[in-house]
Amino acid sequence: MSDGHFPTIALIGIGLIGSSLARVVRREGLADRIVVSTRSADTLKRAEELGLGDAYTTDAAEAVQDADLVIVSVPVGASGDVARTIAPALKAGAIVSDVGSTKASVIAQMAPELPDTVHFIPGHPLAGTEKSGPDSGFAELFENRWCIFTPLPETDPAALEKLSAFWRACGANIDTMDPEHHDKVLAIVSHLPHIIAYNIVGTADDLQTVTKSEVIKYSASGFRDFTRLAASDPTMWRDVCLYNREAILEMLARFSEDLFFLQRAIRWGDGEKLFDLFSRTRDVRRSIIEAGQEVNAPDFGRQVAAHPEKGSKPA
Amino acid sequence: MSDGHFPTIALIGIGLIGSSLARVVRREGLADRIVVSTRSADTLKRAEELGLGDAYTTDAAEAVQDADLVIVSVPVGASGDVARTIAPALKAGAIVSDVGSTKASVIAQMAPELPDTVHFIPGHPLAGTEKSGPDSGFAELFENRWCIFTPLPETDPAALEKLSAFWRACGANIDTMDPEHHDKVLAIVSHLPHIIAYNIVGTADDLQTVTKSEVIKYSASGFRDFTRLAASDPTMWRDVCLYNREAILEMLARFSEDLFFLQRAIRWGDGEKLFDLFSRTRDVRRSIIEAGQEVNAPDFGRQVAAHPEKGSKPA
Repeated sequence: MSDGHFPTIALIGIGLIGSSLARVVRREGLADRIVVSTRSADTLKRAEELGLGDAYTTDAAEAVQDADLVIVSVPVGASGDVARTIAPALKAGAIVSDVGSTKASVIAQMAPELPDTVHFIPGHPLAGTEKSGPDSGFAELFENRWCIFTPLPETDPAALEKLSAFWRACGANIDTMDPEHHDKVLAIVSHLPHIIAYNIVGTADDLQTVTKSEVIKYSASGFRDFTRLAASDPTMWRDVCLYNREAILEMLARFSEDLFFLQRAIRWGDGEKLFDLFSRTRDVRRSIIEAGQEVNAPDFGRQVAAHPEKGSKPA
Repeated sequence: MSDGHFPTIALIGIGLIGSSLARVVRREGLADRIVVSTRSADTLKRAEELGLGDAYTTDAAEAVQDADLVIVSVPVGASGDVARTIAPALKAGAIVSDVGSTKASVIAQMAPELPDTVHFIPGHPLAGTEKSGPDSGFAELFENRWCIFTPLPETDPAALEKLSAFWRACGANIDTMDPEHHDKVLAIVSHLPHIIAYNIVGTADDLQTVTKSEVIKYSASGFRDFTRLAASDPTMWRDVCLYNREAILEMLARFSEDLFFLQRAIRWGDGEKLFDLFSRTRDVRRSIIEAGQEVNAPDFGRQVAAHPEKGSKPA
């Protein structure tokens, strides 16, 4: 059984996820050498200032040439380009994985580009915050979060186990599913919530009868809860919408249908329908708390507002 | 200038808001005597066990007879009944206020019932958590939150100032606006977010292709943020929908219009439109944090998950 250690790990992309990986790999001693690569010279410089790796290059092909594990952490729309760039330089036997929030599209983009001599295992750690960039990462990001693999029919079980051991050492729990199912699950648990949050913040921002300063001033009464998701990385989310289109459109259709049902109940004063829905949804939250995916502190433990120093860094 | 103190305060309704008031009134010495009243004998018993008042009764009329300040904290649909019950027992010169999330409807229900000898000042503290009942209250709930008054044309400025001093002593900041504007503001900053949250949790709960256990397991990727609002008190929110119907229907129409625009951009692969919206909404959150209505800790400071004892009680 593997301990999750690789001699050389190349991180392509060093944003929230890439830089969190860099930090946990260092802390847990999961690599002898970390090579950091990103297209932007400024971001690369910042990664170097933060000491996230042992070597730095804007050339992804150079980054992967000695790597035993390559993790691509870029907006999903850039996956194909990265695969094309690194393909000729990859070492035989290397494991190539990613962290993208859509899987069918990433496979369609990357698999045809990569040589048969490497193990391509698509992955997706369900972890993140609304922050982006190399400064925003932290070693604890993956703790008690799920990392989902969507292996290909030809995936070598031994390679999958090595990669699983790596992610377990990063703190994550492992699941596998087929890519299409992953994309549907993520459409409802992640993509739709982000789209709805972006949309409601946009709607509020456009009102004339209620001023923007009123929206901000009184935001603690509910609106605020949506603004965290709506502050997420725009490039990443643009790509998610473009590359998981079918599943997202299906979830949006269902959501709108349900919303019209609710709207009709409001228009016709059907209190019973409203009460039924509003009672049913309470149970879902209870289950989430029981599953350890949320804390039961009221108002998301926002008491840290009174002591911002307690809230500045995730523990 | 008033110091916010009243000889006798009657609290009609002892849920999250009523019981938080009881606690802060006690802590700040804002009353010589607190009379607690609620229709449910069980809830009243619990309030007594918690020591929230000095006297307890299920009879609201009895509760208000010596009160200098009466605060009605019940679902807005019950406002008219409460006003009818307490009207004959109210002391001349008493201030009667409420905490309801809709104001035009509360005024329409209560104003015609109350005698001219009392000061009726509709109010709404913008504070709450997803919890309900007398156990869920805490003295710090109103700290740095807004309390909005919607005074009537005939409201006595001295009475308004006395009530404002009381709420300031509870930790709140004071605003005044007209009832119709309040109802529009709240429709967008509070009612629409709650309705959307209830709706998305309902949609997820109904899916066949994605199981409920998958939704719960992977909820940390966005969905979770909506479940807090969707765990709020069903009776309260049913009444808000029924009693702020027009403003809510207007906001829902705008929201759906915007969502269809976004959906169309996804369908047609218009990345530029998506990127524009997703960038714009980031600024709104920044403004909310600058206004002190949110903390900047990533992921809502959910690090308390690791140390639940820190998160169990708001500071």
